Amino acid sequence: MQISGANIIGYTESSSGSQTFQTFNPAENRSNETSFFEAVESEVQQALALAEKAFPIYAQKPVADRIAFLKRIVSLLLENQNMLIQHYVLESGLAFSRGETELKRTCVQIETFLKVIEAESWPIQSEETAPNGIYFQKRFAPLGPVVVFGASNFPFAYSTIGGDAASALVAGCPVIVKSHSMHAGTGYLVSKLIIQAALETGMPDGVFSNLQIKDHQLTAMLVKHPCIKAVAFTGSISGGMALVAYAQTRKDPIPIFCEMGSLNPVFLFPSAIHTKSQSIAKAFSDSITQDSGQFCTKPGLLFLIENEEANQFIEELFKEINSKPALLMLGPTIYHNFMQGSEAEEKQFANKSREISDNKSQENYGLPLIDVISLDDFKKSAIWQEEVFGPYALIIRCKTISDFQDVAKMLSGQLTATIWAEPSELEMQETLLFEIQRKVGRIIFNGVSTGVQVIDSMHHGGSFPATTDSRFTAVGKDAIYRFLKSISFQGFPKTHFDKKT
Amino acid sequence: MQISGANIIGYTESSSGSQTFQTFNPAENRSNETSFFEAVESEVQQALALAEKAFPIYAQKPVADRIAFLKRIVSLLLENQNMLIQHYVLESGLAFSRGETELKRTCVQIETFLKVIEAESWPIQSEETAPNGIYFQKRFAPLGPVVVFGASNFPFAYSTIGGDAASALVAGCPVIVKSHSMHAGTGYLVSKLIIQAALETGMPDGVFSNLQIKDHQLTAMLVKHPCIKAVAFTGSISGGMALVAYAQTRKDPIPIFCEMGSLNPVFLFPSAIHTKSQSIAKAFSDSITQDSGQFCTKPGLLFLIENEEANQFIEELFKEINSKPALLMLGPTIYHNFMQGSEAEEKQFANKSREISDNKSQENYGLPLIDVISLDDFKKSAIWQEEVFGPYALIIRCKTISDFQDVAKMLSGQLTATIWAEPSELEMQETLLFEIQRKVGRIIFNGVSTGVQVIDSMHHGGSFPATTDSRFTAVGKDAIYRFLKSISFQGFPKTHFDKKT
Repeated sequence: MQISGANIIGYTESSSGSQTFQTFNPAENRSNETSFFEAVESEVQQALALAEKAFPIYAQKPVADRIAFLKRIVSLLLENQNMLIQHYVLESGLAFSRGETELKRTCVQIETFLKVIEAESWPIQSEETAPNGIYFQKRFAPLGPVVVFGASNFPFAYSTIGGDAASALVAGCPVIVKSHSMHAGTGYLVSKLIIQAALETGMPDGVFSNLQIKDHQLTAMLVKHPCIKAVAFTGSISGGMALVAYAQTRKDPIPIFCEMGSLNPVFLFPSAIHTKSQSIAKAFSDSITQDSGQFCTKPGLLFLIENEEANQFIEELFKEINSKPALLMLGPTIYHNFMQGSEAEEKQFANKSREISDNKSQENYGLPLIDVISLDDFKKSAIWQEEVFGPYALIIRCKTISDFQDVAKMLSGQLTATIWAEPSELEMQETLLFEIQRKVGRIIFNGVSTGVQVIDSMHHGGSFPATTDSRFTAVGKDAIYRFLKSISFQGFPKTHFDKKT
Repeated sequence: MQISGANIIGYTESSSGSQTFQTFNPAENRSNETSFFEAVESEVQQALALAEKAFPIYAQKPVADRIAFLKRIVSLLLENQNMLIQHYVLESGLAFSRGETELKRTCVQIETFLKVIEAESWPIQSEETAPNGIYFQKRFAPLGPVVVFGASNFPFAYSTIGGDAASALVAGCPVIVKSHSMHAGTGYLVSKLIIQAALETGMPDGVFSNLQIKDHQLTAMLVKHPCIKAVAFTGSISGGMALVAYAQTRKDPIPIFCEMGSLNPVFLFPSAIHTKSQSIAKAFSDSITQDSGQFCTKPGLLFLIENEEANQFIEELFKEINSKPALLMLGPTIYHNFMQGSEAEEKQFANKSREISDNKSQENYGLPLIDVISLDDFKKSAIWQEEVFGPYALIIRCKTISDFQDVAKMLSGQLTATIWAEPSELEMQETLLFEIQRKVGRIIFNGVSTGVQVIDSMHHGGSFPATTDSRFTAVGKDAIYRFLKSISFQGFPKTHFDKKT
């Protein structure tokens, strides 16, 4: 498939603008060839107008048609997976095998959402005859057109047809994707397959658009437009909060779902070190270096209690980390942010696990690093609570278990927290557990936070600033409820609902 | 029970301030005797600090204890109902019988919420073993302290222990009520019973506070405070949007649930007029005058198609309305707003059903009024889409059924819309129905929108500006989910959850 570099506005390709950009191959440290056209205002307006026009048609399609559309997307993704993953690798530096896993996961995710609307009762929430004899039916209905901002680190699973876009489409909402500029080619290819599926299954023009935008004013235009009824974003805190600020100038409040990263603290109890020091060191170092540590669920903070066994654990962790090579990162910006974050001047009193000089071996390759500081030092500067995206973690030496509780109270919102301990210890840690529950969306016991399972019982969310709304998840079937509202039908004849739409 | 007029801050009464106010008896057109103390800043801070301190204790109480607390509130409300309703009447002008109905409804509502947490599985959302063999459990957890702003027109059901406060308490969130100044005495009495129930059932100090606030800066302080994790409000658009603006200055976004009124349009098809003109006229005029039309679900707009039968229907409606006496309203401000709204100068070209002069018979008594205008006139001024709170409705003469579709597209968000038609006609009105669904939370077929049933299938909400979040309801068991978030527990031993909290 040729990549024209155009914006995809419903069924039409459009390249009205004069500004172009290229994506970057981090492995070869050079730009990829294709030029992508930045969208201009008229193109953004056109995508918005089409989405608004498509909404009533798409929302009223029989559910079976919507299912066919999404299933066709899945089959096209799988049919074209080699081609897609080749581009994915060129634009992300991620391994082909990771691309395979991620694409499979993306498809599973779509199928998980489809199960919600495939249910016999869909879209009925409940029905009953009220005490006054009147028949009520409460039903789900889509909110309206949704804007999706994908993440750099998941070109498939959190981007063009990732969890946000897919759940919105399954809910019955047209989607406008603001394409991630780092994988614009992959985004273009996936978008073309979505459009092919839409055409083949008779979906309305405008059910999906993919815009290449770098101008913040055009981003704001998308978020502020009256026809847009929800926004989903995965990325940085500054990026997410910019969208929240745009939305605050709207006349009508709309939900803005931002997933903005996390430090994913780990609380390591002495008992766990005592019984399985080595396996935890291995699990932790594997977790922080998996895919170059470029996961929002990478454990970035590890709290432990100072003692001889803890010192040995740290040595083992250093050994594990030092056995890892420098790791290819998603691109130069992310690589430089990683270097800056892990080498910040304020961090001079940290004991890094490796000599910094080693870390300059090759452009875009980040060397896994671990800092060790005291709890007192940790409390002295907010810099330690800034996420370092990449293979970096900070160990904090605490004095007592009650320090863990204090830390949990002090931490800001997180996607996850992890506890390594004996089950019997867990029972005595009610305060710690409660403080953690106030902050996080998922608590892991004796395991690692990376490797988010796409299952119903997953909650991928957490308190601010991990997300902007801790009540909702971005992974698992419940993600679809972000884009649905409820309507009660009072006194309608039951037969009115026979035609399932 | 004596009314001291103090603020109730957890278990303590407090009247540090020097500003006082009185409530008003609209039937006797004079102030009630008791003086109520406006809260000062230190009292607001004290209530906030107590709520924050109470949260971990309250949230971790065994669910059975929380149920006992809420059940005791119900029994105390019922034991004291005569005393409560007497004050209610003095401060609202509503009938004693209406007070009885409303108090009963308030109790039923609490019991409905309790059913959610009484369920065997509570607070488990789902549990499963992931493909990798790890056990997951997804559970509900309370958001944190909640601030509730009650409505003038429901001193029981939407105020001190109304749907918002009760659902937050059932969810496990401490509540600070900003007492409605029009029924401060009723609010005080209900609060004292809540405190009694809290003491008797061993709830922590600060689980509930009731503050008398008139100063906007203190209101802002409540909404902006970091410990507050949600706000619920029932009242005017300007009031609700002020809270939204306060919340926008917070560091962390929190959900602000505002229910801000509605015009509740009615679409009356020629067939319905043809077959049941008289009964619709009666139902409609009863609905707009019920409790002096002081319901957020009062039908304020009635669209019909001009023809001979429609003219006869209007005559019948006039006859019905003219048979109603002037109706006592909640208080002077609401009465004057009603007079102003129904007599606005721009409305001079309307054909009112009664001579305006009749309407000045008695202070606080509003005479039921109906205006009739053409669709063209309706479109000319936004004034016709301003809610007139009280026994007032506007009839709009349309030319064709397709005018109904145009109107539905033009209307802003509403709590409800009503269709009077033959069931067979409904099938041909897909466009009208879809446009209505975009706007409203409930659609009534051949019935009236007033008389909100407290049942699971009720959705009391709607698109902006009816509410700030169309996905949630303020009535029925689902209202509790406004104050709950989800947490996934990964790899925890199942036995960890045996103790039900």
